[in-house]
Order: sequence, then C-alpha cells, then structure tokens
Amino acid sequence: MVVRAAVAGASGYAGGELLRLLLAHPEVEIGVLTGHSNAGQALGPLQPHLRPLADRVLEPTTAGALAGHDVVFLALPHGQSAAVAEQLGAEVLVVDMGADFRLRDAGDWEAFYGSPHAGTWPYGLPELPGGRAALAGARRIAVPGCYPTAVSLALFPAYAAGLAEPEAVIVAASGTSGAGKAAKPHLLGSEVMGSMSPYGVGGGHRHTPEIVQNLSAAAGEPVTVSFTPTLAPMPRGILATCSARARPGVSAESLRAVYGKAFANEPFVDLLPEGQWPATAAVYGSNAVQIQVAHDEAAGRIVVICAIDNLAKGTAGGALQSMNIALGLPEDTGLTTIGVAP
Amino acid sequence: MVVRAAVAGASGYAGGELLRLLLAHPEVEIGVLTGHSNAGQALGPLQPHLRPLADRVLEPTTAGALAGHDVVFLALPHGQSAAVAEQLGAEVLVVDMGADFRLRDAGDWEAFYGSPHAGTWPYGLPELPGGRAALAGARRIAVPGCYPTAVSLALFPAYAAGLAEPEAVIVAASGTSGAGKAAKPHLLGSEVMGSMSPYGVGGGHRHTPEIVQNLSAAAGEPVTVSFTPTLAPMPRGILATCSARARPGVSAESLRAVYGKAFANEPFVDLLPEGQWPATAAVYGSNAVQIQVAHDEAAGRIVVICAIDNLAKGTAGGALQSMNIALGLPEDTGLTTIGVAP
Amino acid sequence: MVVRAAVAGASGYAGGELLRLLLAHPEVEIGVLTGHSNAGQALGPLQPHLRPLADRVLEPTTAGALAGHDVVFLALPHGQSAAVAEQLGAEVLVVDMGADFRLRDAGDWEAFYGSPHAGTWPYGLPELPGGRAALAGARRIAVPGCYPTAVSLALFPAYAAGLAEPEAVIVAASGTSGAGKAAKPHLLGSEVMGSMSPYGVGGGHRHTPEIVQNLSAAAGEPVTVSFTPTLAPMPRGILATCSARARPGVSAESLRAVYGKAFANEPFVDLLPEGQWPATAAVYGSNAVQIQVAHDEAAGRIVVICAIDNLAKGTAGGALQSMNIALGLPEDTGLTTIGVAP
Amino acid sequence: MVVRAAVAGASGYAGGELLRLLLAHPEVEIGVLTGHSNAGQALGPLQPHLRPLADRVLEPTTAGALAGHDVVFLALPHGQSAAVAEQLGAEVLVVDMGADFRLRDAGDWEAFYGSPHAGTWPYGLPELPGGRAALAGARRIAVPGCYPTAVSLALFPAYAAGLAEPEAVIVAASGTSGAGKAAKPHLLGSEVMGSMSPYGVGGGHRHTPEIVQNLSAAAGEPVTVSFTPTLAPMPRGILATCSARARPGVSAESLRAVYGKAFANEPFVDLLPEGQWPATAAVYGSNAVQIQVAHDEAAGRIVVICAIDNLAKGTAGGALQSMNIALGLPEDTGLTTIGVAP
Repeated sequence: MVVRAAVAGASGYAGGELLRLLLAHPEVEIGVLTGHSNAGQALGPLQPHLRPLADRVLEPTTAGALAGHDVVFLALPHGQSAAVAEQLGAEVLVVDMGADFRLRDAGDWEAFYGSPHAGTWPYGLPELPGGRAALAGARRIAVPGCYPTAVSLALFPAYAAGLAEPEAVIVAASGTSGAGKAAKPHLLGSEVMGSMSPYGVGGGHRHTPEIVQNLSAAAGEPVTVSFTPTLAPMPRGILATCSARARPGVSAESLRAVYGKAFANEPFVDLLPEGQWPATAAVYGSNAVQIQVAHDEAAGRIVVICAIDNLAKGTAGGALQSMNIALGLPEDTGLTTIGVAP
Repeated sequence: MVVRAAVAGASGYAGGELLRLLLAHPEVEIGVLTGHSNAGQALGPLQPHLRPLADRVLEPTTAGALAGHDVVFLALPHGQSAAVAEQLGAEVLVVDMGADFRLRDAGDWEAFYGSPHAGTWPYGLPELPGGRAALAGARRIAVPGCYPTAVSLALFPAYAAGLAEPEAVIVAASGTSGAGKAAKPHLLGSEVMGSMSPYGVGGGHRHTPEIVQNLSAAAGEPVTVSFTPTLAPMPRGILATCSARARPGVSAESLRAVYGKAFANEPFVDLLPEGQWPATAAVYGSNAVQIQVAHDEAAGRIVVICAIDNLAKGTAGGALQSMNIALGLPEDTGLTTIGVAP
Repeated sequence: MVVRAAVAGASGYAGGELLRLLLAHPEVEIGVLTGHSNAGQALGPLQPHLRPLADRVLEPTTAGALAGHDVVFLALPHGQSAAVAEQLGAEVLVVDMGADFRLRDAGDWEAFYGSPHAGTWPYGLPELPGGRAALAGARRIAVPGCYPTAVSLALFPAYAAGLAEPEAVIVAASGTSGAGKAAKPHLLGSEVMGSMSPYGVGGGHRHTPEIVQNLSAAAGEPVTVSFTPTLAPMPRGILATCSARARPGVSAESLRAVYGKAFANEPFVDLLPEGQWPATAAVYGSNAVQIQVAHDEAAGRIVVICAIDNLAKGTAGGALQSMNIALGLPEDTGLTTIGVAP
Repeated sequence: MVVRAAVAGASGYAGGELLRLLLAHPEVEIGVLTGHSNAGQALGPLQPHLRPLADRVLEPTTAGALAGHDVVFLALPHGQSAAVAEQLGAEVLVVDMGADFRLRDAGDWEAFYGSPHAGTWPYGLPELPGGRAALAGARRIAVPGCYPTAVSLALFPAYAAGLAEPEAVIVAASGTSGAGKAAKPHLLGSEVMGSMSPYGVGGGHRHTPEIVQNLSAAAGEPVTVSFTPTLAPMPRGILATCSARARPGVSAESLRAVYGKAFANEPFVDLLPEGQWPATAAVYGSNAVQIQVAHDEAAGRIVVICAIDNLAKGTAGGALQSMNIALGLPEDTGLTTIGVAP
C-alpha cells in the first residue's frame, strides 16, 4: 500500500513530529506540506532536524492544496479544522490533531473554546474501551489532547472496574513543546529553564472537559476532575500523577490485577514491574506509555502515574497509530516503543 | 551582637547553602566547619561558589570540634544529630537541619526511619500558628523538611479556618538538590535533564508523617495526606500543588480572604495578586514563599500552589530565620525575599 | 550617602538584574523606573522575583521622567542611549548598559551597528590597566559587553606582559539571557534546552570590535580576534575559552606568575588554584570572575578560561561596580563574590 | 542476512544507545548482553527506555559468553578490550567502542592511557579519505572517539585541500552522557544543570592524540592541536568549533567549494546551506553530522562548526555504520539522518 499524506501546519511542533514519524513509516509517501505565516518558505530552516525534507516549500493551507491525498493531517490552531475538513472528500482520511472534534458536548466546547461547536469525530485513543472499533475504517479522526491521552490511560481501568470514587485529582507536568512554537515571553528558555510553574489552575485548562468526558465514559457515571497542569523545564514529556479515593475492598493486588488485564495486549502501554516508576526520559521520542499504580492505604487513595511523550503518543504518534487502524494497517507500523535516552 | 556559628556537614548542599547565607549575615561569624568523608580537605574545591571560605579546612564532626560556639548547625544524615547534640551545652543553640527531632510521634519516626526516636524539638516554621512563640529563646530547633515547609504553608490557613475536608492531595516537584550531593546513578545529569519522575509514591516518602502532623495540628482533627513527590530537571526549587475538597460555603472570595489574613504580616510569604501564579524561578536563592489559591467550583476543591527554594526557605534559609527568632534578632536579618532570575 | 537611581528599561533582563542588585545596595534608593512597550504596567508580573518592587509602575522612557536622580542607568536597545543622555545634566551620573559609547573607533561602530557613532565614554571595566582612574569621578560610563568583559579579563594580562602572539582565538558559551527578553522562536525553551549552537560565526558578532579594542590596547599593538559565540542551554553565565600562541620563553610558571600578579588585589577576580577550573555555576548571581590558565606545550599556546555571570559582572554588576568607583563609594558596596549554587 | 550480535557493556550509555539502534536494525538479532558490576541483573531497570529487552539478564563479560556471534560489540572501560578480543575467532567481527585500538603510535597510547599499547585496528570513520576501503571486509574495527569524530569531519577537508595552516584550535561542548554512567559528584544533575565548565585543558584530554593523528594524516604533515573540551548542561550532543589560520588565497567561495565536494556523496554529513548553523538539537538521536564553514577575513582564519550526537554518530551509530560496511550491508541500514526535535 502507498498512502499519500498531506500535512497542514508543517512548521509547528506537532507537524514537525508527525513528519519525523511519517519519514519512517514504510507505507506513507509525504505529499503537500502547508503553513500559514511560513507559506512560501522552505522547510529546512524551520525544521532543521528533518533534513530529507529541507527543500520542501510550504504551500498556503487551502483545501485545494490538500486535495488529492489519501490522508490529510491537520495541525492547525483550534477552530480552524472544520472549514478545511468539510472541503475534503468523504473518502479522504482526515486526522485532526487540533481540539475541534474531540468533545461530544457542544456546551463544553463553547464554554472552553468560545466558538461554535464543529461536531464530534471518532476519538483516536484506541486503548480506551471500544476505541479500536470506533476507528476501524473511519475517515475522520479526532486526535486526543496530550494531557487527556496520559490521564485517560492512567485512570480508565480503575473507573471501568469500579475501583475509584468519581472524583479524580490530577497534577501533570508537561514539557514546553506542549505550549507550541509561537514565541511568547514566558516560554523563553531563560524563563523556563530552572523553573516549575502551574497554569490553568482551578479547572480552567481546555483539556479538563475532555478528561471528564473520557473518565465519565469509563466509569458509567459523572466523574469530577481537579486538573492542574504545570510547565516543566524540559522540551518534551508528560508526567501525570492521577489519584482518586479507593472504593471499599480495593487492595494493591486487585488494583494491579485490573491494570495488568487492561493493558495485557496493548502494544504501546507498559505497566511497569512493581518497584519501577515511569519517567518521561524513558519514553522520549517514542509512542510508549509507561504506567505504574499504587494503593495508598493510609490516605485511602489509588495513585496512578503515567509518562508519555506529549508530541509522540500525545499527538503525532497517537495520530499515526489511529491512521494505521483506520486504514487497516498493522497498528504499530512506523511506531516504536523504544525511547531515546539518556 | 556577634554570633559565632559552627556548621557540621559543610560540604553538602544544605551546609553549602547555609554558609552562603551566613556569609551575608551581619551578626554571624563563621567558626568551625566539619565534614565526614571530606574531613581534612579544604572547602574550595568542594564548594567552588564560596570563594571567601576556600581555604577553610574541614574538621571531623565531633562534639569537641563543635564546642565553643554560640550556634551549631547540624546538616548530618538522618539519625546522627542526637549523639552530637547531647554533648553540646544546653546554652548552645543547636539547629538541626536533619529530620531527627521533627516528629512528635515516636511510632511515626520508627515506622519511617527505622531507628529509635530521639525526641522532639521546637519546630522551625515560624509562620505556623504559635510558631514564633515556640522558637523565641529556644536552644534546640528542628528545621522542617523542604516539602513540609511548602505544603504546610500552602494548606494550614485552609485547615485552620475550617475551609477544607481533612483529606489533602499533594503533588510536588523538587529540584535535584533536594536529593543531596551523594553520587547516585539516577541523579546524574544525563538521567535527570529532560526527565520528570516520581518517587516514594503511595505514602512512602518520609516527609509524609511530618505533613500529616502539621496539617492535623492546624485542622484540630486528623488529616490524611496523599503525597507524591516528583523529581524535576532543575537544581533547586519546590512547586507544591495542594488540594482538598472544599467544605460547604467556601467561595473564591472567602478563600482569598482567609489566605490574605493568614499572611498579611508575614515577611517572607507572598500571596500573589489574582491571576499571577508562583514559579520556582521567582524564588530562586531567596527565602521567599509564593502562594496562590483557587477555588475549583466544578470539582469542588480548593487548590493551593506554593513555590519555595528547597535549599533556602526549605532548609538553610528557614534555619537562619528560626535562629534569628531564637536569638532575638530581627527575623529577616541576613535573609532576602528577592530571587535570582532569570 | 543616599544615591537616588533611575532605571530606564526596567522590564528587561539587564534592568531586572540591576534592580535586584540595587535593592541590596545600602546607599541606593530606587527612583523612577521606565519601560517602552510595558510603560504603564506594574513591575510585579514583569519581574516576578522582585516582589518589593511589584507595585511600581513603569513610566515611559523620557528624559523628563529620568530627571532629578543622582544616577541614571540606561538599559535600552542599541542606539537609543545618546538621545536620552544628552538631555540629562552633566552632573548626573549616566551609566549606559548598551553598546553606544563603548567603541573608540567610529568606523567600527558604523560597520557593526549601522548607525552614526554617538561617542565614547569612560569604559566600565576597572580591572583593565588604568581602568579605575578613568572611572573615578566620571559622570558618563559605558558598561562593557558581557563577552568583552569575560574575554578582556581573560587575556589582557597575557597581552600586557607580552606573553602571547597578537592573534587570539576565542570560543565562548553564553546563557540565553544574553539574548534578551524579546520573544523570538529560536530562543524558546523548547529550542534551547538540550542544544548548543553558534551564532555570529566568522567575525560577525558585535562584540568583536570591542574585544579587539581592549586586547590591542593591552598589547600595545593590533590584535586580531577570531570570536565564536555559542548559545548554551542555561539561563545565565559565560564560559570563555581564550587562547593565543605563546611567545618564546613562556612557561606554565611565568604564565601563572603574570596572572597572579595581575589579579592579586582585585576584589572580584579569582585566579583559581592549580587544578581547579572555572564553572559558570560557581559565579551564578555574583560579581565574581573565575579564571584559570594553562600552557599547552605541545600546541604552543596559552589557554585561559574565564567564567562570569553575564547579567551580573557581565552587565548589571559591572555597572554597579563602576558606579561605586565613580561616586567614591567602596568598590564592592552592594556586590558579592559568592555565587548561588548548586 | 541475519547478523547475530553480542554487546559487552550493555548497561552503560554507549551500550544502551547501541542496543537502541540494533533494535531498529532489520538484519540484526540481538544475542548475549554482558555487564560487569551489573551481571546477573535484568536490563529493565538499567535501561528503562529499552522495554523490549527488559527481561534480558546480563551475563558476566567473558569470551565464553560472547562466543558464537557474528558480531561482538565491546563497550568496555579503556584497556579491557584486547584481552577479550584475542579470545574471539578471527572470523568474528569485533567492534571496539573503547579507545584501545584507535591510535597508531604506541608512545601516544602510553603517554595518554598509561598502559601497554594493544595495537591498531581499522578505524571506523568511513568519511575520511580511504575510510571505507579500510573497513570493507574488516573483522576488527576501532570506533573513533566522539570528539575526534566531530573534529575530524570538521577539519579534514580543509587540511586535505591545503587550505589551513597546521595549527588547529578546537573548543568543543559535549553533553554529559559523554562522561559515562558512573556516578561521580561533578556529574550530578545539581552540578551540571545551569553550568558550563572545561576539563582536560591544555592538551590533557585523551582524544587529543587521536585528533592529531587524523588531521595530520589529512594534511600530510604534522598538525598541532589545541583542544579544549567543555561540559554542557544537556544529556547528549557535541558542538565542535574548529579553526585554523587560512593559507594565502583562501576565500569563502573556495572554502565552501572544498567542503561541498568533500561531502557531496556522504549519506550522513550535511553541509548546511549558507546562513544556517549546526545545532546539537537537530541531530539528537540520529547519525547525522551537520557542518557549516566560515572564512573570517579580519582574523585570517577558517572556522568550521560541527554538530553530532555523541552517543549516536559519535559512538554507537558510527559503530553500526562501520559494521554495515564491514559486512557488505548498505551503509545506512538501521540508521537515520533525522533528529528528534524539539
């Protein structure tokens, strides 16, 4: 099979990571690349690590430029995907790496994004219950947010198995690439190196309703979520610390059994051996998910730690994994569980 | 006043930071410095930033070497302070920067440290209710742990005012200096740069009972604590994200009012203006504490963020602040609220 | 003495560091603060580490706003200092932290900065031969560039003593704060963390003619300079590796003797003991200069390593040191040789 | 072809990187892994990013354990390779990632390593003149040092073309993984983050004679080398700044032409377009070499900048590239020019 793929938004971090992975995908041929403010420029200086594509020139992001491909990946600012997608044929696989089609509740979308809701597409997290079935043969895919990827994988088994009370508390640290490539003073190297800081505290982060949606679906009842994201002095990686009060009867053994079963056949999720804890460095550049669980008896809580690479499994790798499923390719084609460390 | 001070454990991070601060303290004269494996060596290569002390030679840590000073600071491994302290006169101010005398419950000590309990000394966190009174005139001081310093300051006002349910969830990120200067593979620069990882998950960290002790005292009832420390890729700093379910009637306004009142006269604690969030970079090298609060209505929780420098306010600065109080000096002598940034 | 000081450009990195130091200077009272794009804003969110000045509001940078102070510090973009300075009285001490008045050769200025030359002011590097005399009583001071500070201190003794051939090769690594606070994509944390990269290679960096000027003056003959600056993944610090072919007869002993003598009475320059090498971490936040020398017999070269804090001794600390001299204050007032480490 | 490969020293950084690459090599089957102090342990906790090998148990490093493979990679401490290699059959391809067989001059070896010289093997830098011919069919390969890889690639074209005087000045920055995984205090994260420092200044670094050997061979005359390595606050990467006085008649054009020709057909070396400079981030995790040249007319020098990943092209990637050549496989099998960024 030769899959011809276009990438809209090729100069950003999500687009760059996708291209890095596509270059290693044996079935994909990279087609048109588009940009907005960088249209007309060569990719070389914009993505200096992607030397084989250095001479590619970015076209403006239009449906016309993106037409004629088997797959179109959209790495656009929030709210811009719908206008492009509706002009692409129904037979084209459109994979949206933005937020536009993730939420099922239009009110949530409007409250957090302040614009009309564009709709809901099949959700690109195959590891969730029913996740693969929703993606098989799909021609529209909404790639999850990076935080929701980590948090949902960390907590859905506990909720699906009824081990946890429906009040989750999540504190997650993200590398700076999660904030994108737009030059903002607080993202300067001088500011972020040596510093940890929170943002969107108290429920304001746009990934909150997506996390609520996923955990509530797993639990079969509404789950409230206290979510605090923090910015960590590293380029990549998410470490999510997730906890909830344990329901009566939960033990370390039952907890571990549930998680072992949930991920037994997952190619990218690694429930670590007891005593070993996830680290973002171990999944750097890979599609791997490292998870470890603990039962804090004194506090009466389940604690689940999850590490992913926010750009890989959290964005571009997840997008590619879902593409593989939608197209009937082996799910791990072009993807690795092996991180780049140290 | 000339206060003659000795420092036991001068080659480590806590000892080095203390010396940095003592060099700037107008009333202190630095006396004997001791070490263990480094005894007999000059301080210069061990603490290359403390050039005025470069030619000082470390003596072995013995009560004899430490005798004859007004103040003796102990920066020793856990469990070693008692043997030294009991040989120092009752009129000498002994400030223990280790854990030995922090806990009131002997069972807690034995469970977490695995050795006999040495006792309990006045606790060096002046900002806690009754904190200054306990320190005035004291001749034995137990300096709090770095995490308990940040967490207790973050949450005691909420508990003292009855705003929060007695189940706290805390996730904190610490710079690597918190793990000390002993060379261990997982603390190598190659390992920690670019990585976030947790440790002591599920209640195992030794600072847990100290946090429980402080929050329970503030609440007047037992508070359970789920505490997850994480190692962040930075040399210094703690960012603590602390939350608890809000009690009925709590609002953003009442929360802010309680915190504003709690810290109104505190020289080192800064409740930030609304909309501004703590960052460890802003308190780097200083004795400052930055705090911000949020009321997450959807999740029904109070969220408090606290940033400190783990070596300064979290260890050596806190020690010096308590020394000032014990000796009747102005509390902020030799200390600053101004961080080194960027 | 109470010195009333104004700072133009208070929201940038140089201005912020200067304010940090001024806050600790016992003779200075901080007067008007100005900004350009940030005029009208409070300093708090702009310089979150300077909490005592949080409520200060920035005025627009005009001569009127800056009038009525004993000292005016200018931390403005290159080329803007002259217009302000000429409106300030001759009795006011104007300390320019920009490049405008550093170069003696108008042609050099025009070639590297592309605008008319504003003039030449007394040069604020007291450690150079004749440096203090030029500053005593001065009312206009040009603060050296950060790289020229490190490089000139590293090499002037060798040139003044005739030990080195007049062809210097310099490679220096700088922390990112040297590039300023303006948000540019290549300075994002995501870009700089984990990366070393050069810039201005081949003689293009604007600090080159300043280095040539200083070394030639020390040598008493023209010295050519090959200068390659590199951007290092750290917020602060310069490590300059400077070398030149040794003249006949030079030995490790003669080299060390010359440097020992050159810096014997310097309060801020530390020629390290043999076997110990400078590190930027050791001078972090301080006005200290760490220097070490080597004679590479096989290559026939003198190698001198110098570490400074680019914002402190390299900019704001150097400015304050020169101010002290100009005003007749003890040179080290408000300055320290003690770094913040680790 | 199925190549069965053993790795001696699998728990270190070089061994880990080699395993990462071998896992992606389509013709290699990973055989026995050995360790020294870690023998008997599973690889999982030692190399947490290599999850597919997590259950592999390290055997002690003996010739017996390593026998029966087509290729044996040695990632052992200096001086230990010969004893193992001489017990392996002549038909086995032995690739030594240590220094033992790199130097041709026994006196150099003894002066820098202090032990008897073991011999000289074909040198694994295919890009050097005659490099590939020396490796084709070889059964013993000495992998170059990381610094010599970067520096030799940077300067050999200038020397081979007679453009440069035979006195090279090199300052290089390396990530901390170059110093290995042994826990030493000065390599702690707390020490290296935020710090640049030099080591082996004045000709003392063991890579100096290897650089001299390579540049002298290219020049056809003895080249002296002033080499200053520095430790940079990043896990990986080497940025080498290399210069030499330009011979008469050299111009920017002639320089560029020579380099363009030297690397025109090299699969892994990228002479960047004018105006673009190498950055270690761009080659992170890849076998790519980024090079840029400049002619500094004022200083009369050629300046060449080279960026590599010290663990990949600088060690394990270079080893694999040479293995491919020796075995007659396409040279780029299992290797990539695409970096992981940001």
